[in-house]
Amino acid sequence: MKFSILTLHPAMFAPLETSIIGRARKAGHINIEIVDIRDFSKDRHKKCDDYPFGGGAGMVMTVQPIYDAIQSVDPKHKALRIYMSPKGAKLTHAMAGELAAKYEHIVILCGHYEGVDQRAIDLCIDREVSIGDYVVTGGELPAMVLVDSTVRFVKGVIDEESIKTETFVDGLLEYPQYTRPQDFMGYTVPEVLVSGDHAKVDKWRREQSKKI
Amino acid sequence: MKFSILTLHPAMFAPLETSIIGRARKAGHINIEIVDIRDFSKDRHKKCDDYPFGGGAGMVMTVQPIYDAIQSVDPKHKALRIYMSPKGAKLTHAMAGELAAKYEHIVILCGHYEGVDQRAIDLCIDREVSIGDYVVTGGELPAMVLVDSTVRFVKGVIDEESIKTETFVDGLLEYPQYTRPQDFMGYTVPEVLVSGDHAKVDKWRREQSKKI
Repeated sequence: MKFSILTLHPAMFAPLETSIIGRARKAGHINIEIVDIRDFSKDRHKKCDDYPFGGGAGMVMTVQPIYDAIQSVDPKHKALRIYMSPKGAKLTHAMAGELAAKYEHIVILCGHYEGVDQRAIDLCIDREVSIGDYVVTGGELPAMVLVDSTVRFVKGVIDEESIKTETFVDGLLEYPQYTRPQDFMGYTVPEVLVSGDHAKVDKWRREQSKKI
Repeated sequence: MKFSILTLHPAMFAPLETSIIGRARKAGHINIEIVDIRDFSKDRHKKCDDYPFGGGAGMVMTVQPIYDAIQSVDPKHKALRIYMSPKGAKLTHAMAGELAAKYEHIVILCGHYEGVDQRAIDLCIDREVSIGDYVVTGGELPAMVLVDSTVRFVKGVIDEESIKTETFVDGLLEYPQYTRPQDFMGYTVPEVLVSGDHAKVDKWRREQSKKI
């Protein structure tokens, strides 16, 4: 599975070099390309935003660099093209699974949340996606959240991590977890977990999950 | 306002060096300290996780390094201590505003989403916060989303950016934005926006916002 991420802030994508995603990239399970929109600006100062028509505060990202950047990574429009936007459909675990199952290539446009020329969206974008009901500076963190939540469904990514994250594939891990030491400053782990009785452990965990 | 972020992956926090947040840090409006939990491990191999009691897949982060890391950044428990967790209360624009208004210092614990010893949460954490109904590898991206959405409410952070993001403080910017050129490959901006008639522009924008 391939992601092409279009941004004015390529340096923000360091988190995608580490941990599970970093390893999945190295192993070739996923391919993430970070594209600097500024490289496509035909303005002689490489400008990528301008004042909004009709007035108002905020700078708006111009359509030309975005259009050309998207054409360069997906010239025949075979990819799903997503724009991270507070107006978009809410990202869910189910949507992440759907994206991984259905699409070989996803293009993600990260805008300033202040605004992107509507023509860039009308001409280039298939779907607007939001990660939640809050405002962030730009689409970069949301794009990484979308990639992280989606690649977990890509074959090999979690296999790689083998058992380490297996409990998570089925959904949220909801019961309390405990590990060594058994006694920390007088706080001990629940007796049942050290009983060696697997049926009891399972029952306790199911009960705890239900409580939450 | 100060954030102390506890993590096993300090390198993931590069996004907080750029853009509005980077500038707000340099200007002294906010202070973000990234704390490596591993530095606090008393294990001779600096280990910070172990197998779960009661069996099951996944490694669980141990309580000792977390406890000591939190004690070091907030010894008198004056800060609000948040654990980024898929079980937590959902982050909203309103919650971000509340955090910025009420707290001088916020400690954020980023766990592997596979699990953290429950005693670390019971002993150290005031509030669990989730950024949405999806699963990510760890608490790092969620922590950055929380910081980004919260610092927008801190005095000086948006003032600094002056007019640039002003439209956003009141909530989501919902009407379509357009900027130069007026004609892009035959796609033109709506006539009303270049009419110079501010009353008409406002009316059009209100109508567009309602549609969305």
